Amino acid sequence: MQTRTAPKSPGELRSLIRNGEWSQPTPGLAPGYVQTNLAVLPKELAFDFLLYCQRNPQPCPVIEVVEAGSVEPKQLALGADLRTDLPKYLVYEHGEMVAEVDDIQEFWRDDLVSFLLGCSFSFQMALVHAGIPVPHLDEGKSDPTYITTLETKPAGIFSGPMVVSMWPIPRSEVSRVVQTTSRFPGLHGAPVHIGDPAAIGIQDLDRPDYGDVVELKDGEVPVFWGCGVTPQAAAMRSKPRMMLTHSAGHMFITDQRYQKLAVL
Amino acid sequence: MQTRTAPKSPGELRSLIRNGEWSQPTPGLAPGYVQTNLAVLPKELAFDFLLYCQRNPQPCPVIEVVEAGSVEPKQLALGADLRTDLPKYLVYEHGEMVAEVDDIQEFWRDDLVSFLLGCSFSFQMALVHAGIPVPHLDEGKSDPTYITTLETKPAGIFSGPMVVSMWPIPRSEVSRVVQTTSRFPGLHGAPVHIGDPAAIGIQDLDRPDYGDVVELKDGEVPVFWGCGVTPQAAAMRSKPRMMLTHSAGHMFITDQRYQKLAVL
Repeated sequence: MQTRTAPKSPGELRSLIRNGEWSQPTPGLAPGYVQTNLAVLPKELAFDFLLYCQRNPQPCPVIEVVEAGSVEPKQLALGADLRTDLPKYLVYEHGEMVAEVDDIQEFWRDDLVSFLLGCSFSFQMALVHAGIPVPHLDEGKSDPTYITTLETKPAGIFSGPMVVSMWPIPRSEVSRVVQTTSRFPGLHGAPVHIGDPAAIGIQDLDRPDYGDVVELKDGEVPVFWGCGVTPQAAAMRSKPRMMLTHSAGHMFITDQRYQKLAVL
Repeated sequence: MQTRTAPKSPGELRSLIRNGEWSQPTPGLAPGYVQTNLAVLPKELAFDFLLYCQRNPQPCPVIEVVEAGSVEPKQLALGADLRTDLPKYLVYEHGEMVAEVDDIQEFWRDDLVSFLLGCSFSFQMALVHAGIPVPHLDEGKSDPTYITTLETKPAGIFSGPMVVSMWPIPRSEVSRVVQTTSRFPGLHGAPVHIGDPAAIGIQDLDRPDYGDVVELKDGEVPVFWGCGVTPQAAAMRSKPRMMLTHSAGHMFITDQRYQKLAVL
């Protein structure tokens, strides 16, 4: 006799995480709900960072900003606490990573502003629901991610190259993938490039800068989307005195269904 | 023999305006090009205002932000000068309008940040191009605009009711109007309400708070969009020590074709 574990709700998962009962990566958890990147910066950098995101909406889609003095993202997850409800965090000081921790309560200060940015984990679900295969997800792999020669638009102290993720798409599905993902500007939106890695400065698809190698099969086209690593990379380059982020793959799980972010 | 004046380019129009040869409202000028609202605030309020816009993208779609120290919107109109290239401006001090002027050079300071927000003048063109009638435009009327009981999401010192504009739409075209406008989140996007003025606190369509009365004919449905007056109203309520804006109907004409803002 097989037993099946009932899928856990986003709130149940955040509760497990807060109590130290889950500290693993989050892909595949709470399917259909938005997961987000987290970037936390001191208030004096908040305008520059928000403007950087506004100018680069494909890699940096802002879904919610939690103002200084609060730790609760009221739009995405009422009652959640951004200091404890992600499985792992990174702590940066002056652009150097100084710690990976399970919660950030001891680092918290009242002048910190939290930015929640759309993540491709929710995005890929839109493709799965549209019947478009994303085989590397089933294999438990992370998206291969590359630093490109595409420059982002600078804002204040923030600038840097665009980082992209790549998914192999069957040639016959490319148009439909553009249509499907365009509906979700809050989750990276339309592809930034289709087809030629060298044109955006990627010399070898088999050597991603982050993530796993994913095989490009005959009849598949490499399609590239802006990646949420971009704003973190820009922020780290500017060496803010303090920055807190999620650790790669350990995202914030929200109560928002991804379909609610569709613009059409 | 009839003579026809060749349509002027956005750059030619800005040049006329800068030289004092055009100080009238801008609807219908440079058809097909984006026109924007202008709001200029001191840098210490810039984060709160940008966040207010991020939280309320339907009434407050930010297209470009020009940082303190610059007057040139490089994305929308290279070489333009926001101090001289709009036909009329309003000057507010502590929430009170103190002057209407043709240029704002004498009021300019290096700590001012300029926000350019999408405007329905460009938006309506999308309907015209989709073959959907907007008869009050042909009659030279401004959109009727109403203060609603819908509350915007506050950010920092900014809060207030949503202001909406209304266009009568033939019942058979309502779906297509939603589709067409949803493609342009940068120009107010999808309607915020369809059909029942009382449900959003509008008691009498024939008594708009701003703009002209537009007749609702048999078989037409009132359709409501977020309006660019919203962020100005919120900003004025907060009584910033200084704020500069365009004067109603006297918008900034950009070099950007509206189609370039389509997300799908």
